[in-house]
Amino acid sequence: MKQIVTFGEIMMRLSPPLNYRLEQASELEVTYGGGDANVAASLACLGLPAAHVTCFPDNQLGRAATQQFRRLGVNMQHTVYRPDGRLGLYFLEVGASLRASSIVYDRYDSAFAKLDPAAFNWEEILKDAQWLHWTGITAAISASAAEATRQAIAVARRMGITVSADVNYRRNLWQYGQKAQDVMPGLVEGCDVVVCSPGDAEDLFGITADENADNGFASMAEKLMRRFPQIKQVIATKRKTQSASHERIKGMLCTTEGYRETAYFDITPVVDRIGGGDAFIAGFVYGQINGRNADDALLFATAASALKHTIHGDVNLVTAAEVEHIVAGNTTGRLLR
Amino acid sequence: MKQIVTFGEIMMRLSPPLNYRLEQASELEVTYGGGDANVAASLACLGLPAAHVTCFPDNQLGRAATQQFRRLGVNMQHTVYRPDGRLGLYFLEVGASLRASSIVYDRYDSAFAKLDPAAFNWEEILKDAQWLHWTGITAAISASAAEATRQAIAVARRMGITVSADVNYRRNLWQYGQKAQDVMPGLVEGCDVVVCSPGDAEDLFGITADENADNGFASMAEKLMRRFPQIKQVIATKRKTQSASHERIKGMLCTTEGYRETAYFDITPVVDRIGGGDAFIAGFVYGQINGRNADDALLFATAASALKHTIHGDVNLVTAAEVEHIVAGNTTGRLLR
Amino acid sequence: MKQIVTFGEIMMRLSPPLNYRLEQASELEVTYGGGDANVAASLACLGLPAAHVTCFPDNQLGRAATQQFRRLGVNMQHTVYRPDGRLGLYFLEVGASLRASSIVYDRYDSAFAKLDPAAFNWEEILKDAQWLHWTGITAAISASAAEATRQAIAVARRMGITVSADVNYRRNLWQYGQKAQDVMPGLVEGCDVVVCSPGDAEDLFGITADENADNGFASMAEKLMRRFPQIKQVIATKRKTQSASHERIKGMLCTTEGYRETAYFDITPVVDRIGGGDAFIAGFVYGQINGRNADDALLFATAASALKHTIHGDVNLVTAAEVEHIVAGNTTGRLLR
Amino acid sequence: MKQIVTFGEIMMRLSPPLNYRLEQASELEVTYGGGDANVAASLACLGLPAAHVTCFPDNQLGRAATQQFRRLGVNMQHTVYRPDGRLGLYFLEVGASLRASSIVYDRYDSAFAKLDPAAFNWEEILKDAQWLHWTGITAAISASAAEATRQAIAVARRMGITVSADVNYRRNLWQYGQKAQDVMPGLVEGCDVVVCSPGDAEDLFGITADENADNGFASMAEKLMRRFPQIKQVIATKRKTQSASHERIKGMLCTTEGYRETAYFDITPVVDRIGGGDAFIAGFVYGQINGRNADDALLFATAASALKHTIHGDVNLVTAAEVEHIVAGNTTGRLLR
Amino acid sequence: MKQIVTFGEIMMRLSPPLNYRLEQASELEVTYGGGDANVAASLACLGLPAAHVTCFPDNQLGRAATQQFRRLGVNMQHTVYRPDGRLGLYFLEVGASLRASSIVYDRYDSAFAKLDPAAFNWEEILKDAQWLHWTGITAAISASAAEATRQAIAVARRMGITVSADVNYRRNLWQYGQKAQDVMPGLVEGCDVVVCSPGDAEDLFGITADENADNGFASMAEKLMRRFPQIKQVIATKRKTQSASHERIKGMLCTTEGYRETAYFDITPVVDRIGGGDAFIAGFVYGQINGRNADDALLFATAASALKHTIHGDVNLVTAAEVEHIVAGNTTGRLLR
Amino acid sequence: MKQIVTFGEIMMRLSPPLNYRLEQASELEVTYGGGDANVAASLACLGLPAAHVTCFPDNQLGRAATQQFRRLGVNMQHTVYRPDGRLGLYFLEVGASLRASSIVYDRYDSAFAKLDPAAFNWEEILKDAQWLHWTGITAAISASAAEATRQAIAVARRMGITVSADVNYRRNLWQYGQKAQDVMPGLVEGCDVVVCSPGDAEDLFGITADENADNGFASMAEKLMRRFPQIKQVIATKRKTQSASHERIKGMLCTTEGYRETAYFDITPVVDRIGGGDAFIAGFVYGQINGRNADDALLFATAASALKHTIHGDVNLVTAAEVEHIVAGNTTGRLLR
Repeated sequence: MKQIVTFGEIMMRLSPPLNYRLEQASELEVTYGGGDANVAASLACLGLPAAHVTCFPDNQLGRAATQQFRRLGVNMQHTVYRPDGRLGLYFLEVGASLRASSIVYDRYDSAFAKLDPAAFNWEEILKDAQWLHWTGITAAISASAAEATRQAIAVARRMGITVSADVNYRRNLWQYGQKAQDVMPGLVEGCDVVVCSPGDAEDLFGITADENADNGFASMAEKLMRRFPQIKQVIATKRKTQSASHERIKGMLCTTEGYRETAYFDITPVVDRIGGGDAFIAGFVYGQINGRNADDALLFATAASALKHTIHGDVNLVTAAEVEHIVAGNTTGRLLR
Repeated sequence: MKQIVTFGEIMMRLSPPLNYRLEQASELEVTYGGGDANVAASLACLGLPAAHVTCFPDNQLGRAATQQFRRLGVNMQHTVYRPDGRLGLYFLEVGASLRASSIVYDRYDSAFAKLDPAAFNWEEILKDAQWLHWTGITAAISASAAEATRQAIAVARRMGITVSADVNYRRNLWQYGQKAQDVMPGLVEGCDVVVCSPGDAEDLFGITADENADNGFASMAEKLMRRFPQIKQVIATKRKTQSASHERIKGMLCTTEGYRETAYFDITPVVDRIGGGDAFIAGFVYGQINGRNADDALLFATAASALKHTIHGDVNLVTAAEVEHIVAGNTTGRLLR
Repeated sequence: MKQIVTFGEIMMRLSPPLNYRLEQASELEVTYGGGDANVAASLACLGLPAAHVTCFPDNQLGRAATQQFRRLGVNMQHTVYRPDGRLGLYFLEVGASLRASSIVYDRYDSAFAKLDPAAFNWEEILKDAQWLHWTGITAAISASAAEATRQAIAVARRMGITVSADVNYRRNLWQYGQKAQDVMPGLVEGCDVVVCSPGDAEDLFGITADENADNGFASMAEKLMRRFPQIKQVIATKRKTQSASHERIKGMLCTTEGYRETAYFDITPVVDRIGGGDAFIAGFVYGQINGRNADDALLFATAASALKHTIHGDVNLVTAAEVEHIVAGNTTGRLLR
Repeated sequence: MKQIVTFGEIMMRLSPPLNYRLEQASELEVTYGGGDANVAASLACLGLPAAHVTCFPDNQLGRAATQQFRRLGVNMQHTVYRPDGRLGLYFLEVGASLRASSIVYDRYDSAFAKLDPAAFNWEEILKDAQWLHWTGITAAISASAAEATRQAIAVARRMGITVSADVNYRRNLWQYGQKAQDVMPGLVEGCDVVVCSPGDAEDLFGITADENADNGFASMAEKLMRRFPQIKQVIATKRKTQSASHERIKGMLCTTEGYRETAYFDITPVVDRIGGGDAFIAGFVYGQINGRNADDALLFATAASALKHTIHGDVNLVTAAEVEHIVAGNTTGRLLR
Repeated sequence: MKQIVTFGEIMMRLSPPLNYRLEQASELEVTYGGGDANVAASLACLGLPAAHVTCFPDNQLGRAATQQFRRLGVNMQHTVYRPDGRLGLYFLEVGASLRASSIVYDRYDSAFAKLDPAAFNWEEILKDAQWLHWTGITAAISASAAEATRQAIAVARRMGITVSADVNYRRNLWQYGQKAQDVMPGLVEGCDVVVCSPGDAEDLFGITADENADNGFASMAEKLMRRFPQIKQVIATKRKTQSASHERIKGMLCTTEGYRETAYFDITPVVDRIGGGDAFIAGFVYGQINGRNADDALLFATAASALKHTIHGDVNLVTAAEVEHIVAGNTTGRLLR
Repeated sequence: MKQIVTFGEIMMRLSPPLNYRLEQASELEVTYGGGDANVAASLACLGLPAAHVTCFPDNQLGRAATQQFRRLGVNMQHTVYRPDGRLGLYFLEVGASLRASSIVYDRYDSAFAKLDPAAFNWEEILKDAQWLHWTGITAAISASAAEATRQAIAVARRMGITVSADVNYRRNLWQYGQKAQDVMPGLVEGCDVVVCSPGDAEDLFGITADENADNGFASMAEKLMRRFPQIKQVIATKRKTQSASHERIKGMLCTTEGYRETAYFDITPVVDRIGGGDAFIAGFVYGQINGRNADDALLFATAASALKHTIHGDVNLVTAAEVEHIVAGNTTGRLLR
C-alpha cells in the first residue's frame, strides 16, 4: 500500500509526572510529538504505511527523537539533520479537575525553523505516497517552513496525491513577518480535506457562519468549500470540556453532500488530552483510505480520538481492532483476557 | 482458630505503571496473585488464620512469590517446589475510561500445571482446617491439578470441613484434553458454598434460569442447589460497569431460605479491579466463620469487594475494621486522623 | 509591603506514592507542612511577603524542612534550632473512592513541643508585620507552645497587627495537662478573624447555633463574635464530601454585617486534600490585605482552596493570577498554551 | 530443627535513593532493621528456623514492620503490640568515596523502649529454641528492655540454650539513668559466644590487651573469657575501610584453644554496609549449628558478611549456597546462568 | 550499502533496578535482547544497515519487542508472528563486587522455538545482504530453529554472502533430542568467521590446543581452521574478571596469517556486562566491512566491547565516532562539551 | 557578615538517571546550575551570606530556577525577569569507566543573553557585599552580559570590594562578534583573585610558562600577576583523571610570596563531577573570608572540591563542618552515627 506522508516539526515534550507542577518536579518525563508527526505515528499504529518528513539538529536529541518515531513504525528516512539549530521543546504541566493543563513552549530557533526548502526533494519523497498531510503550525514556524509546505503541496497536486490540512491557527506562533491571513489561503487552496473550526475559519479566512444558521460549523464549512473548490471535506471535533479530567467529544463532517456528526463520547478521567485532534485526523484518513463511507470514517475517527485521551503521550498507541472495539459500542471498559 | 485452606496457582503479575501501555513501559510493576491465593491472603488481612497450598519452581521466582504471601501472614509451609516447570506470569495493562484493561497470560507449563497430586498429603494439610476453598481455574490448568483438587475435596468432606468453590469458567484455559463440563460437576458436588454466575451455570452445567423468572440469578441458584444437594449457598456479585474507571457492584446470595442482595456500591475511580471477586469470597467466608447472619455476611463481603477496587494488586489489603467502617455507611472517604 | 507572620510546627510528611497502602510502599514521598506554615507558604506563592516562625531540631531534617519553605519564598530567618527534640512526622495514606485517606501522626517530643518561649523575641519578629496567624494545633502541642502563642498575640495586639486564628480543635492532641477549653478562649479573644466550624465552637466554647436557626454557621458565628468582641469576621468552608476522590466545597463568612457564602466548587478527582483549609485562609488574608470587599475575598479564598485540592503536598502552589482565572469562571480546565 | 531466637528493637529505615543527601530527597526508601532482628532474618535466609521477639506500636507502621520480617521467613508470632509508643526510625544517608554515610536516629519513646518485661513469657518463647541472641543496643534502650533481656538470658541458661551477644557499645544510646558498665557485665556473664571489639571491651569492662601483645584482639578475648567463664568464643570482624565505597574485612575468633582469622575480603563497590556485622554473626551461628569446625564457621561468617556489603537493606538476603560459592573462592563475580 | 542480516531469538529481559535482588524488586526494568539481535542493533548504532530475522508471538509482547529493535534502526520487516508460542524471557539480577550477576531463563516453548523453517524465504531475505551472522544458541533452541539456520547458511553460501557465527555453547539449552556435537559442525563448516573460545572448541568439536602451545587460543584456532577450511578468521575476547564490578578484556584474532591481540581494556565499574561479546562481534564486522586491516578491526571490536560494559541493556548504544574516540586512547573519561 | 555576590546565567540541567544514554531516558532529572551561581550556593551551604544576580524569563521555568537557589539560602532578590528570552538548558549524559560524560548545550537566546545592563543597579546590589565573583562564561554569552560584568567589576573596585574571576575559556561560546582575547583582559585587570589554568592563560592572554620552569602553573601565574598587578592570588586545581568514575585532584595557589599545593585527593567512584571547580572556588573564598592562611584556605578549597565529586547536582551541598572533617584526614568514609 502507498504511504501517507506528513511534514512538520517534532518537539521534545517534558512533563512532570502525574499532576505535579513544574516547580515540584525533580524529574521530567520525556516524549516526542508534533501535530503532523502524531498523525503519521497514529496511522502507523493503525497499520498503515506512514512516513514523516522533518528536520532535526544533528545531535543526540535529534537522533533520540528520530528513534521514537521509528519505533512506532514511521518511515523517518527523509529526515534532514542540520549542524545548526536546536530541537524544539515544550513543557507540559498536566492539570486535574478545575486546574487546567498548561504548556510553556520553547521552540524558537529550532533546526526545523531554519530548514532549507531545497533540502527536500518532494518528487522523491512522495513517489510512493497516496496522501500528504500538513498543519498550519508548520506554516507558522518560519518563512522557509511555509515555503517547503507550499512546494510539497504543489508536488502532491501534480502527482495526484490527496492533500489534507489541519489549519490550526496559533496566533502567537506567527512571528516571522508574514501574516497567517496572507500565507494560509495559498496553501489551503491545494487541499482536499481540511480540519477547521469556525473560529479558525473566521480568523484565517474571514469566513463566518450565516447568522441564522442552525449549525454554525456546517454553514462555515459550505462557505469554505465554495471559497476553495478543491476542498471536498471539512471536519472537526466539538468538545464539551467538563474539566481538565473530564472531556466529551463528537465528530463533525461537512461535504458537498451535507453534514453529519457522531454522538458524544464521554471520557473520564482524561489521561492525556494532547494529540486528541491528531488522532481524529489519523482515524479519518484511515477510514478514507480503507474506503469506508463518510459516516463510518467519521465514527472511526471520533472513537480513535476518544481512545487517545486515555493514552499517555502525543501519539494514539492503539490498533485498528481496538478502535473498532469502541466503534462497536464497547465503552464500558470490561476487562479483556 | 482453625485455618482456612486454599489451593491453586500463584502467578507473577507484571504491569506497566499507571495507565501506560505495555509497549511504553520501561519498567513493570511486580506483584503476585491467583484466584484462590487471593482469598487466603485477604482472609489473613482480615485477621483469620489462612493457609495456601501451591506448587512453585525451585528458583528465585518461586521463592519471591512465597515471600509475598508469607508477608501477608498466609501459612505457606505446604508449598511444593519442583525442579522443573516455570512460574506462571500474566501481563496486565490497566485501562482508563472507555479503554478496557487487558491481560496477556503466559502461564503454560508452570510448575503448578506439572504438579504431582501425590505430593500433597491432604490429611496432614487439612488437619487444622475448618474450611477449604478452590476455584475452577485450578481444575482447568492440568489433569493433575484437577486430580489434586478432587482429592482435597474428598478429604475435606471426610473430615467434615466446609468446602467452597468459585466455579469461574475460563474457556481458553481448558486445554489438557478434558472438558470442563465433564470435570467440574464431580468437583462441585462436594461443595457447600459456590460462587456462580448465570452464564457459568449455563456453560458448565447447562442450567438456565426459568424464562419467566423475575430474578435470573435466584432461579439459576435454586436449580443448582437442587442438582447438587450439598450446596447450601450460591453467591455472586453483579457488576454495572460504567467504564474502566467506574464500577458499581452489588452482592447476591441464594440459600434454601431464599434470595437477598445488597444495595449497589459505587466505585470511582477504580484503582485496581483484579481480585474483586476474590475479596468478595473472602469477605463472605469471614462473615460465615464469625457466625454472622446471611444478610450481614453478604454486606460485609460486598463492602470488602468494593474496597478491593481501591487497592493496588490482587489482594484486598484491608482489616476487618476497615470493612466494618464501610459497612457502617462511611463511604464518603472523610480523612481519618 | 509588610509581612504576614505565622507561627507553628512544621512536620515531615511521608506518603506512599499514588494510592498505595503504607505496608505496600518501598518508598515514601517526602514533603513538609503544618497548618500555619502552609498559610505562610500559600501567601508567598500568591505574591505576598510571608514569614514563618518555628522551632526545629538542629540536624539534617530540620535544615531540610527549612529549605523547603525557603524555596517557596517564606522568610525563615526566625527559625530556632534546638539541640534536643525531634522533627515531628506524619504518615499519610491517600485513599480513593470510598476508601478514606488516613494519617498516622508521629509528632510527640518534637523540638517544637519543647520550645522555650523566651527564644522568640516577638517585638523583633513582628516589627515589619501587618498580620499574625496561628492555629489551635500550636496551642495543643505543649504548654510552652501555647505560652509562646499567647505572647505573640499579646505583642501583635500592642503593635496594632491584625490577628487571625484557625481554632482547629483536635481532641487527641491535647495531652500536656491543660484543657483546650481552658486555654483557647484566652487566645481567641485577641483575634480579629477566626476560622471556626460549628462543631469546634461547641467543643471549645460551648457555643451552639440557635435551635431554629436557618443557618447554623451564621447563628454560631454571631454568638462567637458576641462572646469575643475583638472578632470581626468568622469564616469557614463547608464540604460536601462525595468520596475520597470527589469533593464539593463552598466558603462561608459572617461579619457584623451579616452572612454570605459562595456557590459550591466541584473537585473531581481530588489530587490532595491536605491543606485545603489553609489555602482558604491564605486566600482570605490575601483578599483582605488587597482591600477587596468581603464577597470578593471569600470567593477568592474558596477558589484558592478548590485549586489546592488539585495540587500535591500541603501547600497551595498557585499564583494569584491562577486563582483569578478560576474566580473568573474558568473551571472547565481548558488547556493553556 | 530448633529455632534461633533473637530479641530487640526493629526500626523503620528511611534512606534517600542512591547517594543523594537527605535535603535532596523527594522520596525516601523504606526498609526495616535492627541488630538482632537482622541476625534472625539472615539466618532465615540461610535456611534455619528463626524467630524474633520484639514490641511494636499497634498501628500500620508496626504491622508493616512485622510483615517485612515475616516475608523473610522469620517467626514473628511473639510480637507484642502496644497502644502507646512509636516505631523507632533512622534516616540513613549513603555516602560515596571519601564522603561517609551518616545516620540520624529518631528512636526515643518507641513502643519497644516502653515494653513491659512481663509481656514476654520466655519459657514459652524459648520452648522450641536452641539458641538465643541479643545485642548491647537492646540493653541500652530502656531499663525495661534491659530487664527483659536479663530474664531472657536467665531462662535460656536454665533451659540449656546457647546464648550469644553482640556487646555493641553505643555511648549516646545509654540515657535511661543506668550505666552500660553496670548493666552489661550481668548480662554478658550468661553468654557462650560474644562479639566484642577491643574498644568495646575497654569501654564496657575495662579490659585492655596486654601492652606487648602481638594480637590485641586475642589478648583482650582471653581476658574476657577469664572474666566471664561462660564465654567460650569471642568473635569480631576487623575492617580496613578504604572509603565509603571500598571495604576490606577479615574475621577473627578466639576460643580457649587459641586464635584464628580469615584472609581479607575485598568489597568494592560497597552497596550497603549496614548489617554487615549482623550478617557475620548469623553466619557464625549457622556454622556452629551445622557443626562445622571453628575455622570453617569463621570463614563462612566472614564470607557472609562480605556478601552482605553487596545487598541493599539491613538483612543479608543470601542463601547458604551463595555463601558457600564465595567460601569456595568464587569472588570474581562471573555471571551465573 | 548492503545489509548485515542476523537470525535468532529475542527475549524480554526483566531486571531489578540497581543491584537489588529479585525478591526485593517491586518493579522490574524491561529491555529486549538476544545474542544475534544484539549484533544487528549494535551495527545499526554504528551506522551500518542491519536486519534481524526472528519469530514472535502475535501479541503485545511480540510487538513491543519489535518496536525496540526498530527504534534502533534494525530492519524488522522479516519478523514472523505466530498465533501460538510465547515470548522468551530472562530475569537478570545484577551483582556487585564479589556477588555475581545471575540469570534465570524462562524461554521454553517460545514462538521462536516453534518456528516453521518454511516461513523464512532466505533468497528474499538475503537479496540485499552482504553478511549473515548467527549463534550457537539459535541452533540449540529447537530442531526447527537449527534447520532454519542450516537453510540460511546454505542460501548465503550460494549467494556469496559472508557468514559468521558465535558458536556459544550452552549445555543446558540443548534439550530437543539432538546433540550440539552432531548439529554444530554441519553449520560451522559454512562459516567464514567464527567466534570460539578454547573451551567451546573442545566441547563442540573435540579440538584442544597443543599441550606445549604458548598460546592456547592460537593453537586451537589453527586446528579449527584446518578442520573447517571455509573459516578464515577465529576471534574471541579474553576476560580477566576481577569482580562483578570490574572487568578487563582483550581481543584475540587468528587468521591463516597468524595471531594478534590487543592490549587489555580496564572497565571499572561495569555498568552492564550482558552483550559484551555481541558488541565485540559487531565491532569486528564493522571493521571488516569498512575494509580495515585485521589489527584495526580487532582493536575497534575490543574498544566497542569495552564501551558496551558501560551501557545499560543488551545493545551497544554507541556511534562509530564514540568507539574511535576510545581507539584513539581517550579512556580517561574527560567530560565532553 | 557582608555578602558574597556572584553574577551569571543559571541553566536547567536535564540528565538521564544513573548512566543511561539520552536516547534511553524516558525521564530526565532536573537540577539547576551555573558556574557563578554554584559558587554562591556552595558558599550559602558553608554558612556564608551569598547573593546571586541573574536574569530569567518571566515564566514557570524561571521561577522554578529561582526557587532552587532560594532553597539553598542564596539571596535571589536581585533577579531580573524578562518577558522575552528563554531559560538556558543543558543535557548531561553521565558516563562511567572509560565512557566520558558528555553535555549538549541548548543555551542560545536565553533571557540572560538578552539582559539589559541598565537593569542592574550595582551600587545597590553591592551595598552589603564584601566580595564579587564572576566567570569568563558570563562574558562569553553576549555583549550585554559582558558589559554588565564590566560595570559590576568597576563598581566593586570603587566600593573596595574584593573581586574574583574564574576565567574559564570556552571557545565555542564566544559567538557575539567580539573576541575573548579582546574582552577578557579588560575584565581580569580588575580582579584580586583569579582561577586560571596554563591553557587558558595562553589562549586568553598569550601567557606561557617559561620553557625551563619546573612548575608550569607557577611560572604562568607569576607572569599573569605581573601583567595584571591587581591580581594577588592565582589558583587552580590539577586533575589526574583516571576514568569517568575515578578522579584525583590537588589544589594549587600562587601568590607574590610563592607557590604551594595540596596533596592529591582520590575520588572513586565519582558521583557527579560537574561543579567541582566551583566548589573549589567557594572553598577558597570561604577560607579567605574566615581569615585562614593561604595553605589552610587551599586545603579547605581542595577538600571541598573533592567532596563535591560525591554529591549529585551542580552545587556542593556540604557544611563547613563536613569539609573540616575531610581536611582533618577522615577520608575513609567511616559511618557517622
